Amino acid sequence: MTKKIIQPRTLSGFMELLPQDQITFNYLMDIIRNGYESFGFTPLDTPVLELSEVLLAKAGGETEKQIYAFTKGDTDLAMRFDLTVPLAKYVALNYSSLTFPFKRYQIGKVYRGERPQHGRFREFYQADIDIIGNEKLDILYDAEMPAVIYQTFLKMGLPSFTIHINNRKILSGFFEHLNCSDKITDILRIIDKADKIGLPAVKEELQKIGTPETNIKDILSFTKIKGTNDEILDSLKNLKIENENFALGLSELSAVVSAIRNQGVPEEYFHINLSIARGLDYYTGTVYETTLKDYPEVGSICSGGRYDNLAGFYTRQKLPGVGISIGLSRLFSQLKDKGLLPKTPKTLLKVLILPMDKDTSLSFELATNLRNQYIKTEVFLEQTKFKNKMNYANKIGVPFVAIIGEDEIKNRSATIKNMLTGEQQTVSIEDVHTLIK
Amino acid sequence: MTKKIIQPRTLSGFMELLPQDQITFNYLMDIIRNGYESFGFTPLDTPVLELSEVLLAKAGGETEKQIYAFTKGDTDLAMRFDLTVPLAKYVALNYSSLTFPFKRYQIGKVYRGERPQHGRFREFYQADIDIIGNEKLDILYDAEMPAVIYQTFLKMGLPSFTIHINNRKILSGFFEHLNCSDKITDILRIIDKADKIGLPAVKEELQKIGTPETNIKDILSFTKIKGTNDEILDSLKNLKIENENFALGLSELSAVVSAIRNQGVPEEYFHINLSIARGLDYYTGTVYETTLKDYPEVGSICSGGRYDNLAGFYTRQKLPGVGISIGLSRLFSQLKDKGLLPKTPKTLLKVLILPMDKDTSLSFELATNLRNQYIKTEVFLEQTKFKNKMNYANKIGVPFVAIIGEDEIKNRSATIKNMLTGEQQTVSIEDVHTLIK
Repeated sequence: MTKKIIQPRTLSGFMELLPQDQITFNYLMDIIRNGYESFGFTPLDTPVLELSEVLLAKAGGETEKQIYAFTKGDTDLAMRFDLTVPLAKYVALNYSSLTFPFKRYQIGKVYRGERPQHGRFREFYQADIDIIGNEKLDILYDAEMPAVIYQTFLKMGLPSFTIHINNRKILSGFFEHLNCSDKITDILRIIDKADKIGLPAVKEELQKIGTPETNIKDILSFTKIKGTNDEILDSLKNLKIENENFALGLSELSAVVSAIRNQGVPEEYFHINLSIARGLDYYTGTVYETTLKDYPEVGSICSGGRYDNLAGFYTRQKLPGVGISIGLSRLFSQLKDKGLLPKTPKTLLKVLILPMDKDTSLSFELATNLRNQYIKTEVFLEQTKFKNKMNYANKIGVPFVAIIGEDEIKNRSATIKNMLTGEQQTVSIEDVHTLIK
Repeated sequence: MTKKIIQPRTLSGFMELLPQDQITFNYLMDIIRNGYESFGFTPLDTPVLELSEVLLAKAGGETEKQIYAFTKGDTDLAMRFDLTVPLAKYVALNYSSLTFPFKRYQIGKVYRGERPQHGRFREFYQADIDIIGNEKLDILYDAEMPAVIYQTFLKMGLPSFTIHINNRKILSGFFEHLNCSDKITDILRIIDKADKIGLPAVKEELQKIGTPETNIKDILSFTKIKGTNDEILDSLKNLKIENENFALGLSELSAVVSAIRNQGVPEEYFHINLSIARGLDYYTGTVYETTLKDYPEVGSICSGGRYDNLAGFYTRQKLPGVGISIGLSRLFSQLKDKGLLPKTPKTLLKVLILPMDKDTSLSFELATNLRNQYIKTEVFLEQTKFKNKMNYANKIGVPFVAIIGEDEIKNRSATIKNMLTGEQQTVSIEDVHTLIK
């Protein structure tokens, strides 16, 4: 009688890593977590499942189609597709228990049933920070996002990157000024794709939606404003556009640029980019995108912006905020493809103890000693030939092996082999941790 | 025009914590993670969603009813209900890439649509370790589970606990010896409830399934064998039961007890308990349950055991293993109810900088300095009265406040207030980190 075997497989679009990659992934995630915490963001963990009615309060169009939603019993459920909607629910629900500005981070999996392409996932980690104000939130907080991201990406050892910033009010003010406010949403959507599709295609799309030729010219020359951050700010001033929104946006952007400098972010790491609009109806002020300088094809690895009201669907409290999100799974996958992942050890383990005698007590004593010194230690317990034991040590890639045989037991010592250099040395049990460190 | 407000709410049975509790929860999770890693377990992260066919290969009965399963497009999906089935799939799928014995840990959310009761969750964290052998796995690994759990729970500051151990072969051998092998499954299920329902109820249930009176007597006196670990082992030997399974189980249990001692687990922390059976068809040797000595009503907070074959549904490779799982969400919730949670700081933040001048550059310089010294630092950026700033500091519970006004900017200094003692001291920017540490 042969039992039926079910082919083991993992859903496509769902990342599942081998141990060595998982160690690298966790290393990056720990840097993000530490980076976020170092700026005073507090951890949050919301459910993966929410009531559909709650989660989809705002959703619509493309997003809604991608959502994993289902009914269990008589309850309509949906899996979260981002970490912002759950945050909005959380803040509205716990409003009276929270201290504002409320700075939280959340690193967790989100779900979107997109057609999986290379580097696109249906289950993926987002690593978000948001700062939520009660009724108001100072513009200076907008400069904290690039500061956190700069410090965090630097520690991750990413190749050179640029944090692009813009301000939605400048864009909307500019279009009001051109008297094409009725087309703002469409125009922003088209401009937002400028980096992807190129200016000729942008022009064509603007024509398609009926933008007058003079406006197209103005729009294109506007998004083409280039130079240093100060030069761009000057160019914007020199446009002498008399529009309240535009003026407000420009003053915000100037304040943010100056505060980003104050936060210690070097000039080459952040840049005003007037073609960035981010989404359609959510962001209302500063917007961010982050690209790898030498790998523009990767697209934005970290995006976000300022919004006027986080939780308007759940509460009448006005909760303005600013946030940014790292798409960690996608970033990991892209870095891996390009050979840009940081080199992390093959194993977290530092010492593998090989007991060569039936009496394992000294091996365990050493293991406990080392663990008390924060040295990750494993005792190999299969009874097999020495060769097989060393083979295991080699395969897992442990840096030190501690051999404890009859002689070592007699002398309360261990023979330590450095697996990288091949050096070998017998020392007292009490001295092993010093040797390893 | 008033917009419709959707009542923000979180699904019942889904844990969502306020910031202070989340900090404590993460503190416990970090101890578990570090504990697991210190013994050489490698991290793993499998998807929350799997193909139903794969995830439910083995499931049935009660488990299957509780599963969150649904169809998206033409794919039948299910949310994982434990971390063991995904491990089995993973090991079968990646068999040729893994090194055996394969020691992995996974801490993640699992989903069971139970009727939520107090302290029972539908979404909850499990924190698992397993050691998987290729064809064979030495019995000594069975002693590593109690050693890891002992060290981990100790570091978590749990109240006194007992790791109960038993061996399924002793049980099955004993019932074979009594000639009631045909009822083993039922009898084990009944015995397993002994601690919950009491011996009279056990007796009644044994009668109900038609166990002969003499057998009931033998079974009850068997499960009542008490004493020190050595006394119980002696009592078992003295039963002089001639049965291969019983003998093998007894020799395994003796070896495990002795190895647990070798691993440095004090005698009062682990105890042979012959009434523990754990599940029905999965475990084949050593089994574990862990209870809090002074809070037996909490039930088992950490359970597991030895199994002959992890992934028989996915591969013909024989993969014996041993594993144990901490039900973290439930443990957290029970500890909280009983006021037994470790005292963690109200915030992770160490220093809150209050800029009192428009010029914030020195504040940011100090913040960067402190963060480089691994001191978590936030700069408060709302422009408001000093009183409101201090109010924020008090509410979030930060231990130190650094005030930087006009004078401080002139002297490149900061006035540091210890929020616990009220002490205040003005020091040079360069000396702040020493004062804080």
